[in-house]
Amino acid sequence: MQIINHPDEMSRWSDATRARGERIALVPTMGFLHDGHMALMREGRARAGALVASIFVNPTQFGPGEDLARYPRDFERDAGMLKTVPVNVIFTPDASAMYSADAETWVEATQVTRGLCGAFRPGHFRGVTTVVAKLFNIVKPHLAIFGEKDFQQLRAIQRMVSDLNFDLEIVSVPIVRERDGLAMSSRNAYLSPEERERALALSLALRAARDRYRCAPCSGEELVAVATRVLNQTPGVEIEYVEAVDARTLAPASSIHSPILLAIAARVGKTRLIDNTVLSP
Amino acid sequence: MQIINHPDEMSRWSDATRARGERIALVPTMGFLHDGHMALMREGRARAGALVASIFVNPTQFGPGEDLARYPRDFERDAGMLKTVPVNVIFTPDASAMYSADAETWVEATQVTRGLCGAFRPGHFRGVTTVVAKLFNIVKPHLAIFGEKDFQQLRAIQRMVSDLNFDLEIVSVPIVRERDGLAMSSRNAYLSPEERERALALSLALRAARDRYRCAPCSGEELVAVATRVLNQTPGVEIEYVEAVDARTLAPASSIHSPILLAIAARVGKTRLIDNTVLSP
Repeated sequence: MQIINHPDEMSRWSDATRARGERIALVPTMGFLHDGHMALMREGRARAGALVASIFVNPTQFGPGEDLARYPRDFERDAGMLKTVPVNVIFTPDASAMYSADAETWVEATQVTRGLCGAFRPGHFRGVTTVVAKLFNIVKPHLAIFGEKDFQQLRAIQRMVSDLNFDLEIVSVPIVRERDGLAMSSRNAYLSPEERERALALSLALRAARDRYRCAPCSGEELVAVATRVLNQTPGVEIEYVEAVDARTLAPASSIHSPILLAIAARVGKTRLIDNTVLSP
Repeated sequence: MQIINHPDEMSRWSDATRARGERIALVPTMGFLHDGHMALMREGRARAGALVASIFVNPTQFGPGEDLARYPRDFERDAGMLKTVPVNVIFTPDASAMYSADAETWVEATQVTRGLCGAFRPGHFRGVTTVVAKLFNIVKPHLAIFGEKDFQQLRAIQRMVSDLNFDLEIVSVPIVRERDGLAMSSRNAYLSPEERERALALSLALRAARDRYRCAPCSGEELVAVATRVLNQTPGVEIEYVEAVDARTLAPASSIHSPILLAIAARVGKTRLIDNTVLSP
């Protein structure tokens, strides 16, 4: 397993790997890995001869009041986990190698990022699509793998790839949950034991809506109402949004006959958590 | 010489060409070629084994009141000229193959595009950088060649390539002029004989400023004054801007010790013309 810090060296490695006819899979991460990330790694390992995991806490996707400075980091632990996959390369550049001081170019998917988290985190998805475009140009993967927990991120990247003709495949992997249902997230590390307990309300709310939907497909409004009721039952969970949208376009869900994304963002203490589920008729 | 219409076919051609170890040069154009374009083609022919010329009148770089519908087109003539170079491929996609109806992703260099033409053509450079990013991802060139007449476009593309880590080289080629000094442009075809005569004011204004600068380096204000005086002497030439800026950043020129871009945009009749010169101490 190689550790590469500089974009130019990464690019050369990828050129040499492609010249040998090998397929490259990329799993972009911000590190502090958990089993959700490991599911992405296993998917990449199965699909390509060469697997690159990037670890980069991307400053441009954090807003002014957000948790960039305290975002959890543990490179040694991450490297140990990635060695077991194994990945071929950990690409872990410095922010200064990724962004020159006078960088001014942005890549932005303008529609799919409007609602949900995009409405509460202005500039977030612009930072995500920009850094992912950069990673694609540096690592030159044949496929890249993203988790469905960040569903809106997944859709923004799929749009970018299609709209800008990136010649690669986007593969998505379902949410990985703790035994009790909590969606895995690096940010779960922020939770106190009491908050960890309250955080279960998100997955419980989604499960209640899913049960309601399984009983008989219903409108987005109904799903939102069911989920909101569960969240409101737990003190200390502050809803940011509960929304039901078209799972493909993320526009308001217009029909109960196409897949609906039910998505939640909520604060538990100071920690912002997200979770979602897709309901198909 | 192959003519390729579809992005997927172009992409496959480029993959096969790269797999043979050949270098690919791309010259993006909007067609209706003139000797300025041919200088770009010759540069590409000299620098790479495989030369691709794209012809695509890109709708997203035209504003609402601009000349998209009447932009001059003559594919047969263009193809005849390109055959003499020769180019290996003419890539000439339909707008519908380049932009899906729900395309929503934009690439934008936000600083270098603020002044000059960017101030008068909102959205223009966003359309340029977006289509050029798409062409880069489709054609996968090792180098791409642009003319210096569209100097701000050149700088926007250089920024995009650097900021987004496109792994390719941008080569620029000096302005090609008619014998009497008029910068070559497809839009010169719009000019009546009288307008053609008046249009000389742009290159004459730049030459006067250049003469003044050669005498002794002077401030941007002085260069603008000299050029403006010449333009104002010609009736029927309506100045849009005359500006002297730092030739690297396109920010206001701060020092007479670094290269200055003196740029003009003016209307002659209904036709908008641009021209520029770089003055180095």
